[in-house]
Amino acid sequence: MELLNIINNNARIIPTDLSIHTQYLLPYLDDLKRASEDSTFSTPEASIRLPFDEEIRDEVRRLATKLQNPKLKHIVVLGIGGSNLGTQAIYEATHGRHTEFRPLRLFFGDTVSPRLLTYLTKILIEGTESPEEFVINLISKSGTTTETIANFEVLYERLAKKFSAEAIASRIVATTDEGSKLRHTADENGFHHLSIPKNVGGRFSVFSAVGLLPLELVGIDTKQLLDGARDMAELCLKTAENPALTSAALTYTHSKNGININNSFFFNPELESCGKWYRQLMGESIGKEKDIDGKVVRTGITPMVSIGSTDLHSMAQLYFGGPRNIFHTLIYGPNKGFDAQLPSELKLQNLVDGINGKDVKSIMNAIIGGVKAAFVKNAMPYTEINFPEINEYYLGQYLQLKMIEMMFLAKLMNLNAFDQPNVEDYKDETRRLLSI
Amino acid sequence: MELLNIINNNARIIPTDLSIHTQYLLPYLDDLKRASEDSTFSTPEASIRLPFDEEIRDEVRRLATKLQNPKLKHIVVLGIGGSNLGTQAIYEATHGRHTEFRPLRLFFGDTVSPRLLTYLTKILIEGTESPEEFVINLISKSGTTTETIANFEVLYERLAKKFSAEAIASRIVATTDEGSKLRHTADENGFHHLSIPKNVGGRFSVFSAVGLLPLELVGIDTKQLLDGARDMAELCLKTAENPALTSAALTYTHSKNGININNSFFFNPELESCGKWYRQLMGESIGKEKDIDGKVVRTGITPMVSIGSTDLHSMAQLYFGGPRNIFHTLIYGPNKGFDAQLPSELKLQNLVDGINGKDVKSIMNAIIGGVKAAFVKNAMPYTEINFPEINEYYLGQYLQLKMIEMMFLAKLMNLNAFDQPNVEDYKDETRRLLSI
Repeated sequence: MELLNIINNNARIIPTDLSIHTQYLLPYLDDLKRASEDSTFSTPEASIRLPFDEEIRDEVRRLATKLQNPKLKHIVVLGIGGSNLGTQAIYEATHGRHTEFRPLRLFFGDTVSPRLLTYLTKILIEGTESPEEFVINLISKSGTTTETIANFEVLYERLAKKFSAEAIASRIVATTDEGSKLRHTADENGFHHLSIPKNVGGRFSVFSAVGLLPLELVGIDTKQLLDGARDMAELCLKTAENPALTSAALTYTHSKNGININNSFFFNPELESCGKWYRQLMGESIGKEKDIDGKVVRTGITPMVSIGSTDLHSMAQLYFGGPRNIFHTLIYGPNKGFDAQLPSELKLQNLVDGINGKDVKSIMNAIIGGVKAAFVKNAMPYTEINFPEINEYYLGQYLQLKMIEMMFLAKLMNLNAFDQPNVEDYKDETRRLLSI
Repeated sequence: MELLNIINNNARIIPTDLSIHTQYLLPYLDDLKRASEDSTFSTPEASIRLPFDEEIRDEVRRLATKLQNPKLKHIVVLGIGGSNLGTQAIYEATHGRHTEFRPLRLFFGDTVSPRLLTYLTKILIEGTESPEEFVINLISKSGTTTETIANFEVLYERLAKKFSAEAIASRIVATTDEGSKLRHTADENGFHHLSIPKNVGGRFSVFSAVGLLPLELVGIDTKQLLDGARDMAELCLKTAENPALTSAALTYTHSKNGININNSFFFNPELESCGKWYRQLMGESIGKEKDIDGKVVRTGITPMVSIGSTDLHSMAQLYFGGPRNIFHTLIYGPNKGFDAQLPSELKLQNLVDGINGKDVKSIMNAIIGGVKAAFVKNAMPYTEINFPEINEYYLGQYLQLKMIEMMFLAKLMNLNAFDQPNVEDYKDETRRLLSI
């Protein structure tokens, strides 16, 4: 077992400051350990249990086997927020952002967008000749997500003009809370279904059926993914010397000093969606009006995502010249089987020195090295996550690391990591407007 | 001439506070007006002239006509930052994010990514039978952009195994500064070339040949685009009552009050790249270590991009519950020819009320209405840009509005909007590492 290489030596925090926080968190470590052993998923931290639970994966695999066939080519995930961000992160990280030449693909219908529905219609209706060619995975924890149900209805009506209700039903999986209304409706309509444990919130659900079914169907190695998550969980539940706790303490200490923006700086463009997943995790878990005692605190750290080297040509001037209010995490790693070499004699000579004969990877490594040196020169705090390889195993580690980190961070900030009470205002008003 | 509908009545700034800033900017309005009339592009604000300059567009059209033919299907832009963000913004806004079924497409090679190069190789080499099928537009203002030249070299070497040097050269356009080394090398190799006026910086160059050639080739109505930009410029150069100035003054006043994050909140997912273009514009123009007098100020506002309704399921908890340090701009509009209706009798009944029989657009409008009501209820400042339609004309207005706004904002903050001195540190070190 090899681990993500996490390098904190430029985080610019005095170790004694850190140890105060790690001491404070030790009792919570025991809670997390218990949560990981609790097969009834009864605690708020229940998501930690997921990679240890073989039943969930077995159930997903049985259903996946039933749905798989040589004709299968389109897996459409209808879900938004916690119902699709983790899946999309892992899919794009492993398959890249450009998948049009792949015979078997994942598609995502998240928000209600006429353009997106036009595209999904082309894929699902014009692009299929038999129901065996697709699976629709309708994912909603509550079962009442407006966008997800609306997208389903538009696509279903169009499919129903082409195929029989029975045939379509056999290709639909509803993933939702055990007791949700969607679960009942799915049963009535003869859809397949998978459950999300009640205490596993959307943003912590990537290792539940929410992520596992579509990933399994598209050929992702979910065993490796869960192995990575489990290995990281075990490491982070053992002692105070663990990367999730350290990362939480670093982030917390910086935020106390006014560094209230958190930049996930990925130097592999295919990891952008990992950043979008992390935005939800951090935004919802620690962006809070009230603390755990009900006191109004209006706190939070704003997560942002940057892509290297793209954003060096866009945001670097702000990072290096602007206010010192950002804590950066540089994240990078090689993609096995992908590389390209520059010719030793360039067509365009004398424009850029030192790139002839190099491979593309080492050019990017020079850019990462340049960024790190500039951070050090400018006394800017950063930390690093170096993937030995961008694959399922290390992605499992990364996602699990960040979820545990967020629980620690919420604990340090005296916040409930698992609720999102302040989204009700806009939802109430949207419901009112829809009822007119 | 219809204009973007800009609604500032929830910006939560006292009008008298605004008028102080607008008064201060009046002399600068005259500078901008002169810049717009200066056909020699001699001022730092030269980019304002671009949509008024018919020669530039004529030159681009002549070259585009030469390159166009019935076989053309792949236009590959090799460029990063200011060399591709504006083009990508307009392309995705008008064509959507999923273009795989289009016969004529734009592709972007920005950073050095083995995965991206694998994809572009598939498109350019495996996907073409004759050089007439592609155009490569190599864009670098300085002519020495590492990533752009590296990507070119990898793709060129592969193309050269398939087609003759002459045939390939006839399909390459180098867009660069008049006197750059790339310009000379391009001439020596028999490439086509287009110039960027010296005083037009990358992030202000979308209406120069940088944006116009690829957009023209892919069938974007560049006349409408420039008409929109010109109409907006004329409006913003006339009197103190203009939307760029008001927007700058609002943003400035909020930033003085500690609201140092600026969120472009797009409710059309296909506008996400407009946000990425704006990030560079704001990040580089006002993220500054020193003010115009050389005093160290370390100032800046952090731009971020959100997508509605996607990010309501990800970032809304932070926005509504967290610190009050974000100024939001809600941006939305219809996409003519795209919509979808939900059936009046739903397949999944009793899950979401009020959506049966509605079109997708009106569901999104209810969500936007819900968000606005929640902003008002929570006394959170926001402004709105309502596109009468998402098309070239209004996109031209939007981009021009934001560029002029940024010049005003820099003036209010006593900053040079047009330089980016702090990126040199990482570039120096990268060069050193490449030379090893």
